[in-house]
Amino acid sequence: MRLVLASASPRRKELLSILGVEFQVFECDVDENIDIQCPHDYVMELAMLKARTAASKLPEDVLVIAADTIVYKNGILGKPVDREDAFNMIKFLQGSYHEVYTGIALYSSGGNIYKKGYERTVVKMKEMSHDEIEWYLNRNEYKDKAGAYGIQGTASIFIEYIQGCYFNVVGLPVSKLYSMLKEINAVNRLKIGLGGLKDDG
Amino acid sequence: MRLVLASASPRRKELLSILGVEFQVFECDVDENIDIQCPHDYVMELAMLKARTAASKLPEDVLVIAADTIVYKNGILGKPVDREDAFNMIKFLQGSYHEVYTGIALYSSGGNIYKKGYERTVVKMKEMSHDEIEWYLNRNEYKDKAGAYGIQGTASIFIEYIQGCYFNVVGLPVSKLYSMLKEINAVNRLKIGLGGLKDDG
Repeated sequence: MRLVLASASPRRKELLSILGVEFQVFECDVDENIDIQCPHDYVMELAMLKARTAASKLPEDVLVIAADTIVYKNGILGKPVDREDAFNMIKFLQGSYHEVYTGIALYSSGGNIYKKGYERTVVKMKEMSHDEIEWYLNRNEYKDKAGAYGIQGTASIFIEYIQGCYFNVVGLPVSKLYSMLKEINAVNRLKIGLGGLKDDG
Repeated sequence: MRLVLASASPRRKELLSILGVEFQVFECDVDENIDIQCPHDYVMELAMLKARTAASKLPEDVLVIAADTIVYKNGILGKPVDREDAFNMIKFLQGSYHEVYTGIALYSSGGNIYKKGYERTVVKMKEMSHDEIEWYLNRNEYKDKAGAYGIQGTASIFIEYIQGCYFNVVGLPVSKLYSMLKEINAVNRLKIGLGGLKDDG
């Protein structure tokens, strides 16, 4: 069984590599406008939509991993449409707490594997002055990031505190993913790092 | 005023680069056997010792940043001396909580700037089987790491949860460092990223 990551995100690709397994990347677009307000239901639904869409276009004997990440504070924050939108997002997030959710979906092209899960992390962002926000936006890291920031870059200066999985905030909670792969006994089948271990999952 | 990082760690170098300031690296060895049991006093004392030692060997008008990171669980865990030591450390840490402390010291070669601080992060490591520990050690990431793991690498699979600053666990809490640099008004003087901002720092 081959592993496929249904995501264009270089960060997810890098994080999945940590598992030490070979995989292919298959990008597929889905309509992200789904009518769900609950953050963890939203990310799991969207992840599953991505996984199913990718699986439907791939041959059998493929296990698709898909994920979706959002920032949540009084509602879902996705990716900013432009710099002004990004400014307003950071302005809204600074000086307080928000949550980050990533949904993960595993779906085999045969349809016999179907699993979803999510991770939630609380993030405390420091107070940022108007100029600090402008300076941050000048570094052009806000594009294509939920909530207009990437915790692994310059924004780390302004992240005071997190509670939960760090890699969830980056975009792929590898610890959760590893547990899910163990639950479907994929660790041995895919020869993920530990695959060589006879008495493991 | 020039900035100098008194550390041989490539991770610290990478993290300091996030601030967008130019700096030089100056490695200096100090005797890490100091008789302090309190984890935050230990890391701050050792960081200051590194900073002072480096400053004493450098010309004036230099601001030295030094740091020291330890893992704490019923006592201080430093770097493993060999693979067996690393195995015992991971065996001891897996399936439970521990703390990670990084002390930061700022010291100017003239001696007029003197500041220290620390960050504390709680880390929950998943249960790991004997074989998972062996597999982890085979990836050779345990060397030269306090507690025998690096959260940014393969160990991320086994980190369920953190509470606090992630970059503290990597080895340099950039958010704390940025605050300390602001407190000594170094942000403008060093033209750290935001240095161009007249009404900041």
